[in-house]
Amino acid sequence: MIFQLYYWPTIQGRGEFVRLALEDAGAEYVDVARGKGRGSGVPALLAQMNRADAPHPALAPPFLKAGDMMIAQTANILLYLGPKLGLAPRATADRLWVHQLELTIADFIVEIHDTHHPIASSLYYEDQAAEARRRSTIFIDERIPKFLGYFERVLRRNPRRGGWMVGARASTADLSMFQVIEGLRYAFPKATARSERDLPRLVELRERVAARPRLAAYLGSKRRIPFNDSGIFRHYPELDH
Amino acid sequence: MIFQLYYWPTIQGRGEFVRLALEDAGAEYVDVARGKGRGSGVPALLAQMNRADAPHPALAPPFLKAGDMMIAQTANILLYLGPKLGLAPRATADRLWVHQLELTIADFIVEIHDTHHPIASSLYYEDQAAEARRRSTIFIDERIPKFLGYFERVLRRNPRRGGWMVGARASTADLSMFQVIEGLRYAFPKATARSERDLPRLVELRERVAARPRLAAYLGSKRRIPFNDSGIFRHYPELDH
Repeated sequence: MIFQLYYWPTIQGRGEFVRLALEDAGAEYVDVARGKGRGSGVPALLAQMNRADAPHPALAPPFLKAGDMMIAQTANILLYLGPKLGLAPRATADRLWVHQLELTIADFIVEIHDTHHPIASSLYYEDQAAEARRRSTIFIDERIPKFLGYFERVLRRNPRRGGWMVGARASTADLSMFQVIEGLRYAFPKATARSERDLPRLVELRERVAARPRLAAYLGSKRRIPFNDSGIFRHYPELDH
Repeated sequence: MIFQLYYWPTIQGRGEFVRLALEDAGAEYVDVARGKGRGSGVPALLAQMNRADAPHPALAPPFLKAGDMMIAQTANILLYLGPKLGLAPRATADRLWVHQLELTIADFIVEIHDTHHPIASSLYYEDQAAEARRRSTIFIDERIPKFLGYFERVLRRNPRRGGWMVGARASTADLSMFQVIEGLRYAFPKATARSERDLPRLVELRERVAARPRLAAYLGSKRRIPFNDSGIFRHYPELDH
């Protein structure tokens, strides 16, 4: 099956968590809004999102077309894709555990986004910079240690060797965790470098994911959109410490 | 099976979405932190959360013990419970659709919470009241219509009669939607009343859920913790308009 991913074409954003899974698995997919020509580009994304007859409409991208199915919500897409891409454990209990981790990552992502947009997504950063600075200070001091300390603990408690979050093989949760660390390094280089001193397993996990051949090829390609100041992870030096 | 729910005993919070499903189904469960005696109360909640040997630790309540499994993240718990409680559709595609709605509700819940805590959960409301007012104004004007308009559309597009969100029977998504509307009515009475004029199907859904016999009994019982100013939904008159 050729998957069709619908997401904004100029940012990594939430769509990147899906791209990483598809790329790591070598799956065939079309990144619809990044294509050229008929049925591609942002107009195709918007047309699909606003179809009046869509039975399962999405509130927002990303959403994935897989045969007759249209699935939205990043973690939900990964819940569906994981087993199909060989990026999920077999046992139901372990799949719920992977999903629990994905949802905890999703919570963290909201908090990361809101460091630069604590008042409203519809306002410019410049119009909420004072609040952003206040929120970011506490985010760095309290929330980064809380979340990353938790994920480090998850790695430490996994009884299986290999350094993955769940069981003895890579899952979507590992890829998503990689993306979070990459993003934090970009957005908050000082705070992240300091935190990483106490997070040896997460640092190793990042290396391990980055070294996966198909993912390494993807990360070095033009398909990987660079971080920028429009996505979830934004580098405003005044917010880092 | 007797489920054990671990959640804070004095607020509805995220635990309430799980309680509603368990109560509606007439499931046997223990609300651990609300019990008295050994192995109960907040100490039991904290002890379970901080167990050094827990293989699947939770970052935060709620979490559910079901036999040997320990499951956290509200939407993940409902994903697990739905089929067991007769509150999920049969087809995989429909279950993913219910879950997509639960995750969209979860996103909304974060935004609702952050109206009164836009800077940090660890600060008092009084220490971020100015920012809260700014965030709430935009939340009311932009986000309530966006989210509730979406859910109204979901109800309108369901080809099956009955007034439920997915298919012809109630699912956890309907119960969660009920809770959101109840909470918004409590927190933002003026804004919610105004919004509801354009949301006839959501208003009907709320009535339909509230009238389910086991749920009606629960809502009239002492087990239903009243809304208060410590939960997700808080009524600060200065934030409503």
